[in-house]
Amino acid sequence: MKKTVGIIGANGYTGSELIRLLAFHPHVTLSFLYSRSNSGTRISDLYPDLTTVCEMVLTDKSEDVDILFLCLPHKESQNWLTQNPVKDETLVIDLGNDFRLEGNFGNRNFIYGLPEINKKQLVGAKSIANPGCFATAIQLALLPLAEKGVLNEVFTTGITGSTGAGQSLQATTHFTWRNDNVSAYKTLTHQHVDEILQQLIVFNNKEVNLNFVPWRGDFARGIFTSSTMKTELELEEIEHLYQDFYAEEPFVTVSRKAVDLKQVVNTNRCVIQIEKSGNVVVIHSAIDNLLKGASGQAVQNMNLAMNWEENAGLNLKPIAF
Amino acid sequence: MKKTVGIIGANGYTGSELIRLLAFHPHVTLSFLYSRSNSGTRISDLYPDLTTVCEMVLTDKSEDVDILFLCLPHKESQNWLTQNPVKDETLVIDLGNDFRLEGNFGNRNFIYGLPEINKKQLVGAKSIANPGCFATAIQLALLPLAEKGVLNEVFTTGITGSTGAGQSLQATTHFTWRNDNVSAYKTLTHQHVDEILQQLIVFNNKEVNLNFVPWRGDFARGIFTSSTMKTELELEEIEHLYQDFYAEEPFVTVSRKAVDLKQVVNTNRCVIQIEKSGNVVVIHSAIDNLLKGASGQAVQNMNLAMNWEENAGLNLKPIAF
Amino acid sequence: MKKTVGIIGANGYTGSELIRLLAFHPHVTLSFLYSRSNSGTRISDLYPDLTTVCEMVLTDKSEDVDILFLCLPHKESQNWLTQNPVKDETLVIDLGNDFRLEGNFGNRNFIYGLPEINKKQLVGAKSIANPGCFATAIQLALLPLAEKGVLNEVFTTGITGSTGAGQSLQATTHFTWRNDNVSAYKTLTHQHVDEILQQLIVFNNKEVNLNFVPWRGDFARGIFTSSTMKTELELEEIEHLYQDFYAEEPFVTVSRKAVDLKQVVNTNRCVIQIEKSGNVVVIHSAIDNLLKGASGQAVQNMNLAMNWEENAGLNLKPIAF
Amino acid sequence: MKKTVGIIGANGYTGSELIRLLAFHPHVTLSFLYSRSNSGTRISDLYPDLTTVCEMVLTDKSEDVDILFLCLPHKESQNWLTQNPVKDETLVIDLGNDFRLEGNFGNRNFIYGLPEINKKQLVGAKSIANPGCFATAIQLALLPLAEKGVLNEVFTTGITGSTGAGQSLQATTHFTWRNDNVSAYKTLTHQHVDEILQQLIVFNNKEVNLNFVPWRGDFARGIFTSSTMKTELELEEIEHLYQDFYAEEPFVTVSRKAVDLKQVVNTNRCVIQIEKSGNVVVIHSAIDNLLKGASGQAVQNMNLAMNWEENAGLNLKPIAF
Repeated sequence: MKKTVGIIGANGYTGSELIRLLAFHPHVTLSFLYSRSNSGTRISDLYPDLTTVCEMVLTDKSEDVDILFLCLPHKESQNWLTQNPVKDETLVIDLGNDFRLEGNFGNRNFIYGLPEINKKQLVGAKSIANPGCFATAIQLALLPLAEKGVLNEVFTTGITGSTGAGQSLQATTHFTWRNDNVSAYKTLTHQHVDEILQQLIVFNNKEVNLNFVPWRGDFARGIFTSSTMKTELELEEIEHLYQDFYAEEPFVTVSRKAVDLKQVVNTNRCVIQIEKSGNVVVIHSAIDNLLKGASGQAVQNMNLAMNWEENAGLNLKPIAF
Repeated sequence: MKKTVGIIGANGYTGSELIRLLAFHPHVTLSFLYSRSNSGTRISDLYPDLTTVCEMVLTDKSEDVDILFLCLPHKESQNWLTQNPVKDETLVIDLGNDFRLEGNFGNRNFIYGLPEINKKQLVGAKSIANPGCFATAIQLALLPLAEKGVLNEVFTTGITGSTGAGQSLQATTHFTWRNDNVSAYKTLTHQHVDEILQQLIVFNNKEVNLNFVPWRGDFARGIFTSSTMKTELELEEIEHLYQDFYAEEPFVTVSRKAVDLKQVVNTNRCVIQIEKSGNVVVIHSAIDNLLKGASGQAVQNMNLAMNWEENAGLNLKPIAF
Repeated sequence: MKKTVGIIGANGYTGSELIRLLAFHPHVTLSFLYSRSNSGTRISDLYPDLTTVCEMVLTDKSEDVDILFLCLPHKESQNWLTQNPVKDETLVIDLGNDFRLEGNFGNRNFIYGLPEINKKQLVGAKSIANPGCFATAIQLALLPLAEKGVLNEVFTTGITGSTGAGQSLQATTHFTWRNDNVSAYKTLTHQHVDEILQQLIVFNNKEVNLNFVPWRGDFARGIFTSSTMKTELELEEIEHLYQDFYAEEPFVTVSRKAVDLKQVVNTNRCVIQIEKSGNVVVIHSAIDNLLKGASGQAVQNMNLAMNWEENAGLNLKPIAF
Repeated sequence: MKKTVGIIGANGYTGSELIRLLAFHPHVTLSFLYSRSNSGTRISDLYPDLTTVCEMVLTDKSEDVDILFLCLPHKESQNWLTQNPVKDETLVIDLGNDFRLEGNFGNRNFIYGLPEINKKQLVGAKSIANPGCFATAIQLALLPLAEKGVLNEVFTTGITGSTGAGQSLQATTHFTWRNDNVSAYKTLTHQHVDEILQQLIVFNNKEVNLNFVPWRGDFARGIFTSSTMKTELELEEIEHLYQDFYAEEPFVTVSRKAVDLKQVVNTNRCVIQIEKSGNVVVIHSAIDNLLKGASGQAVQNMNLAMNWEENAGLNLKPIAF
């Protein structure tokens, strides 16, 4: 029998992307889509691509479900859980950043939901903190070096699509401004740095510095990052580290060929490429920020928590072009 | 047991898009991918998005299969079938234009594969001529008026993404030229006009003129068309015609809301909207040119021919953004 | 000695584009930039591309100037002139639509500022109503046929860049939505149709119908239109009409080669191409909506009114790529 | 009297961009446009935006001129000069990379044409090696720190528009591939690194390492770079260094506000912004790769060499949107 799912904040980008994924998921059925601001509106009126895919009406009432996704602005997940008690047996997956750095909240202990590091703990988990989009791309780019304990001073530039900024109308998401444009933001101060370092340090066992320069790109979906670091390891050795680390991971590919962003758009995959010159290594990684960087990873986490095949509902046709 | 599939011309855009669809199709298995020019190359080396999705190597040998897709340049399907005899029981679906206007070829009689007009004939068919991309978008926009017999002089403008021009490098697909650009081509002389009229006239029972101005757009996927015509029918009456005509069609939606191209990108759907002012009606239609306009419709036709559920393998997550 | 210029509504797209043009114009000097909403702000803080080009501060006080440009939302030009009396000898050029259909306002009689039809009246004029962007592109496409008196039923599709929608944040100018997208709006009801017909009928001397379907394009600058009509005239005859009509016009080119939008972006030019098949003619036209479609044409009108060379300040480097 | 100009390789992107600039330059007249491959073709047939701007026909004959621009593929400038002796009094400006690292060639000694470091030497010069596009953006971002002697280990990521790849048709400039895409190329091995370091070391007086990761962006014009480095200098101190260094430079702006690429597109300007957190400084710089990164800078160099005002012909209207 299919498990029931509710989405809190279903009217946003990550919420709607979850609907796109779950509408065709083999093991779940959508029970309710919660949105305070758009209650009473048909979701396909907000997102016409969902016509015939999902014709549910947004509601401001939540129900008991087997699985609950929180797609709320940062800090609102805690408020919501406080005001809307959820049964202990309900799987809660939070796509915000409320429980990423500190997972204890009431009876719940949120597991950091990057399957490539916490797979065992995620199986059967009841509370999962889904990682941030840049945090996913950058951790996957650096984890094997961290496990080897050789991470030191990393210089990362990352570029993100406009969906990363959400659906609100902003000067920096105005088409006239953003089209054909590139710009930096939150230079060296992006909120994902702490999230990344907290995980990497556990592996690396010594201090890591991450100097991260995020850029806004003139595309809607995707994140591409290049991380540069000094190392005495040989390229071949590094590639082996990565191949080994991700050998069992269905959604991470280590490529010896040039990586480009559209290889992963509309998929849950992360593609990584490693290049080296002298004693400097550069690791490129690419993800779809709404999928492996948000809603796709949330489904992957749900699959693990529910003991389903890890890729259930995630065999997505790449956009490719 | 799964049916075996071969793709001739698997290295092109429509061929590779078929692979993306069939790799996850529940009832088929890919037996071989034929390409004369890229024989010996791994398909995922040509299309890295296919990494982990399909790791087959292109071959210049064909085999007996249950289902054969021809994804060849125009006029080469006839040559190929002549030089490579195919068993009568093999389902052949041609994505080129060789059999659209004249379906008889040797023992085979190609059915025009627009399911919305030929569904009965397609069930159990062994030879299917898959429609052109603009031909699909424009026919779906006009068919209900043709069935009513009121089509007369139609003025259509359509805009297509760059994938419609294929993978060859051309001045008009150079990024530097095409980015932020719009241009007309084959004004009033597009090869799909004959294909469209041949079908419409059967329904309309009297002459139809189609004045078609195709434009190149600065996006990769999708076709958007607006067709203008004089009519005495009321808007409501026209909308009823369309709702009735497409009532049972899983992939055609008649919308009362504004249509935009991205509602259908990465799906097999066609969305139609009708507007009227005075005695002039305008019908907008939008499809993904590689899916409902090519490979997706080919899979839909295969499903019908094989008596499978019409949407098998076609529950695709929209790109949406 | 340079003439003094004031811009009312300098903070909008057309206002800022005027600044870009006038900052380098040989015969004028900017006296003040008026903006109620942004008074006190440096214009280069709103439009950083103006850094070093124009460092003036927006003001909510107007002054006496030789030339006044009104770049206000529709209907606000009348209000502004009522509340802020302007000396009779001041040249007033309105970029809104307040005086296009009806030019009499108090002592002033606004000349419709399409130089290709009203050049004589514009020389020495004191009040000019600058045409709309689509109105410019479509009139220039149809005028020679109107002058010949053969215009009848015209079917036009036009596509516009996002700057046409102004700088306000709207759902349809959100990058995430508009990128890679096409959509129709104001089908058959665009406000420029009346403006176009009012002018064309004077030439054509008999009724003209214009069925106009505007589209939104996924680029920032430019308008491309295709107008389709039945005619018994031969292509060569039509081309001669156009060549003759525009022989003396510095900013209109009749091309025998394919027209694309980027041929005119960042210029004040309009390029027209004519194609014919059977008894159907299609006229393509392309302009930059902010230049020949707005601020560039306003400068052209100023030059004419002031008896300066028509292209003063308008020798603009095309963006080309 | 105007000086005569010839362009060798006028059919390429930098050649055609020179034409766009020189057609309106107050002190020069174009004498001939040389192209071996397109001899006999009207330049406006290759670049229709040049219609009415320049209607010259490409030739394979060169003439004596006052000023000669070489816009040839790398290494072909030397060949050309060897095979086509040029009078000593002719100003030769090479836009290729033949004379950037080693300026001595026959009687000529090419000055490295970055006006912000070599302005005195450029005045009256007869041979100028125009810098590379990335080399311009990165040097302007780092020069003030080099002059202070504090440059050490720099990590730079830069993204370039497709015009940087020239007009040849390549897989990486196919619209279908490049649209919405990002990718890395020549990681740590870009040919401009040597050019950059050769200049910076002169200022810095000690070794500088530059770890440069170039990316391809999905836009046609522009370069945006972010350079990260450790330093004990305070942000304010650094900003003063930059303000001082560029105080007299008409085309370099040090901005305290966020920089985005479109602030400089279609201008000869470079905008720089400095950010700092802890002991890490990030310098962003943006240029138009075809203008300040190529043809615009070549005109600037010509102006200096000829003792004309530095910005003659370079008061370009920004594209802005």
